[in-house]
Amino acid sequence: MNYSIILKIIGWVIQLEGIFFLPPAVTGLIFGEYNDAFVYLILGACGILLGGLIRLHKSPKTTFFAREGFVAVALSWITMSIIGAVPFVLTGDIPSYTDALFEIISGLTTTGSSILTDVEALSHANLLWRSFSHWIGGMGVLVFILAILPMTGGSTMNLMKAESPGPSVGKLVPKIQQTAFLLYAIYLVMTILEIILLLTGGMPLFDSICHAFGTAGTGGFGIKNDSIAGYSVYLQIVITVFMFLFGVNFTFYYYILVRKVKDALRMEEVRWYLIIFLSAVTLITISLVAAGGKLGESIQTVAFQVASIMTTTGFATADFNLWPQFAKGLMVCLMFIGACAGSTGGGIKVSRIMIYLKQVRKELTQQIHPKRIRVLKMDGKALEHSVVHSCNALLMTYIVIFIVSLLLICPDGFDMTTNFTSVAATLNNIGPGLNIVGPTGNFSEFSVLSKFVLMFDMLAGRLEIIPMMVLFHPATWKK
Amino acid sequence: MNYSIILKIIGWVIQLEGIFFLPPAVTGLIFGEYNDAFVYLILGACGILLGGLIRLHKSPKTTFFAREGFVAVALSWITMSIIGAVPFVLTGDIPSYTDALFEIISGLTTTGSSILTDVEALSHANLLWRSFSHWIGGMGVLVFILAILPMTGGSTMNLMKAESPGPSVGKLVPKIQQTAFLLYAIYLVMTILEIILLLTGGMPLFDSICHAFGTAGTGGFGIKNDSIAGYSVYLQIVITVFMFLFGVNFTFYYYILVRKVKDALRMEEVRWYLIIFLSAVTLITISLVAAGGKLGESIQTVAFQVASIMTTTGFATADFNLWPQFAKGLMVCLMFIGACAGSTGGGIKVSRIMIYLKQVRKELTQQIHPKRIRVLKMDGKALEHSVVHSCNALLMTYIVIFIVSLLLICPDGFDMTTNFTSVAATLNNIGPGLNIVGPTGNFSEFSVLSKFVLMFDMLAGRLEIIPMMVLFHPATWKK
Repeated sequence: MNYSIILKIIGWVIQLEGIFFLPPAVTGLIFGEYNDAFVYLILGACGILLGGLIRLHKSPKTTFFAREGFVAVALSWITMSIIGAVPFVLTGDIPSYTDALFEIISGLTTTGSSILTDVEALSHANLLWRSFSHWIGGMGVLVFILAILPMTGGSTMNLMKAESPGPSVGKLVPKIQQTAFLLYAIYLVMTILEIILLLTGGMPLFDSICHAFGTAGTGGFGIKNDSIAGYSVYLQIVITVFMFLFGVNFTFYYYILVRKVKDALRMEEVRWYLIIFLSAVTLITISLVAAGGKLGESIQTVAFQVASIMTTTGFATADFNLWPQFAKGLMVCLMFIGACAGSTGGGIKVSRIMIYLKQVRKELTQQIHPKRIRVLKMDGKALEHSVVHSCNALLMTYIVIFIVSLLLICPDGFDMTTNFTSVAATLNNIGPGLNIVGPTGNFSEFSVLSKFVLMFDMLAGRLEIIPMMVLFHPATWKK
Repeated sequence: MNYSIILKIIGWVIQLEGIFFLPPAVTGLIFGEYNDAFVYLILGACGILLGGLIRLHKSPKTTFFAREGFVAVALSWITMSIIGAVPFVLTGDIPSYTDALFEIISGLTTTGSSILTDVEALSHANLLWRSFSHWIGGMGVLVFILAILPMTGGSTMNLMKAESPGPSVGKLVPKIQQTAFLLYAIYLVMTILEIILLLTGGMPLFDSICHAFGTAGTGGFGIKNDSIAGYSVYLQIVITVFMFLFGVNFTFYYYILVRKVKDALRMEEVRWYLIIFLSAVTLITISLVAAGGKLGESIQTVAFQVASIMTTTGFATADFNLWPQFAKGLMVCLMFIGACAGSTGGGIKVSRIMIYLKQVRKELTQQIHPKRIRVLKMDGKALEHSVVHSCNALLMTYIVIFIVSLLLICPDGFDMTTNFTSVAATLNNIGPGLNIVGPTGNFSEFSVLSKFVLMFDMLAGRLEIIPMMVLFHPATWKK
């Protein structure tokens, strides 16, 4: 294990987080929250200094293998969380460090599950930091580092692989740095576009920025106690559209940018993402209308909720806890499917679900015609065995983590639905679940142990499990 | 598709079922239920006659491929169910044919889920038929046919493969007929042994036979409204032990019989089955004692319930609906794990769970050391790729059926826990679930659509999904 390069990366991360503390500091100054601004400024300065000191350490080797990639990513995220929680405590808005840690991990992993019972009591600086953490975590902080820094030596691809979601990370362009840069450029432009559209709808600038951050990272932290429900229909529709757009595989946008529209439209995952979205909206709308809802209103509400859950954002305009069982059941299914690979969304990802279903179809045909050989294909190309194996192993690891988490939080004594959807909401980085953790509830009542279990789940979900598991595997730490 | 050989097999099955109607007929005569005895006698005669007529049909080809095997098995089980439900309706004990069908499918698939609210109101003839159906379904009716008949031509292995549970069907001896015969011999001897032990504990003969049938098939239909709770501790312990024993891979007993004790003890699956059983008993006992239960009493109750759920039998001595959440959560996990492959139990099976976990371990090591090659092994031998692929595809198909079933029964409006455990209890052939379908509840309140969904799940669970899916696959019916 090349410890020095990992240390260096963590140095970068700490320094960068110091810089990330500046926007909340400025917000605090603007809104006259001088105490909070001071906290963020001091912490920012400390971060920049400490990170710089760590980076002074010279690395003798530049070799960088897969396990270094996983460990670097896992430790970077843990470090960011530990530091990111501090301002919540120091400003006094979240006095318990455990709760603050839960909140910032929920932010960085773009989950959006909260332990707060009254969001509106927070200062503007803290509200911005919560939402900003979604934006940072959405595309990934190491991808950011790759985008702005010329990393030297070894295969930095391993870093990106470990942080980016999806079964196979497509390098958009041959150079890893350019790929990372392109991704962040698309991300930034789309975020700004959403801010502008929200502003034109009459949303205040501060609200627009926070909500755009929450949408872009598919996070879900709101700044109002009723999330998005209090805003106009126009604003809700803008957010619905952008939630959907940020759940699309970014390769799609790249193809559009370089005018390979045909390649873009040929992407099976994006097509299925759209099909699942439309089917879910149709079925749930029917279910609501059958239960006495108005058609037009239902479509708009359902489209918002489906986009919010499927892209794992977690904003709410309605309490789907009160919907009919069938609608609730479908919502829980969507929680697991998640968004596209290569987007900022979480969940198992549409492309993995497709790989699973393709295997089922292949196996059935194989059983009926044992001698016929079939190849698994995606976008017209044969899928590599290693990709399929990784997908399968991920599903199984996912199930194991799910069950163990469920058993660990059971002793808190909540009902099965609360427990089940708490784990589903955190492991899939969604935010709200059902019952106690439903859209109008929160995670504050869980015990400290349960909160740590759910924090692990959020990190495991965001980093797609492997980096967090690698951290606990003895083979990682052997010579 | 070789339709004539499938027809011939169904002829055999119908004739055999006619013979199987005789024990309930005799029971009816003994207990003076002449009306019921008459129904079973007439139906028995009809079955023997009709089956014989169908068998007269000469088959021009004797080729017998995998898809014929699957279709024959699926159709045989459906035929048996359709005919097996008739006496319940004709004797008047279950007036609705849908309910009667649910009950007999639950019996034959060794599920043990009931739509009856008052079991004790049934006649002795019907009670025996319910329990006997567990015994028939436990080892499989086609395995029975293979055991007693010299099947001509083609690979009859495909029949056995399609009906027997587990990732790889071990032929105990080179000849398929001898294997089938051996399995039934072990099955019969163990059943008789249990009857004797129950009799020595003072249980009446009729009760002993019914309960031994229910245990042997890991079915779970009782003959009392409080299942096993009313019997003495000795009788409960006997049933606990035999539930556990019938959940063991029968290959283990074969090894013991031929004095290959070393091979028997080397079976990884059996060892893990024991480890999981003991761990579950320990953890749940701790949970009950922590909640104020007495140690000795708790151990005995927990051992019974764990054996009952893990082997997917479904007998009850306690209402685990009232246990702490952690204990309930563990019970739900056990529902999915199930018993050993090659036993009469259902569920995903211990050996498959092992194959999944081995893949997880392999993938993690692979990620850490990409160049190291690892081979998946079971009992010291390398696992074939096709076995691993089948296991994975089965898990995915299982999940798909689970989700679709859940969504289809949701509109009935029951709570999530009831819905979730209803599907879990039927697809894993267990019997009781939680809440409304808990140990003291039943399935009578579900709508007709939901009942049919759960019937499909019971059949899919018993036949390990593939045969039922093959039936609905277009490729099966193409030339």
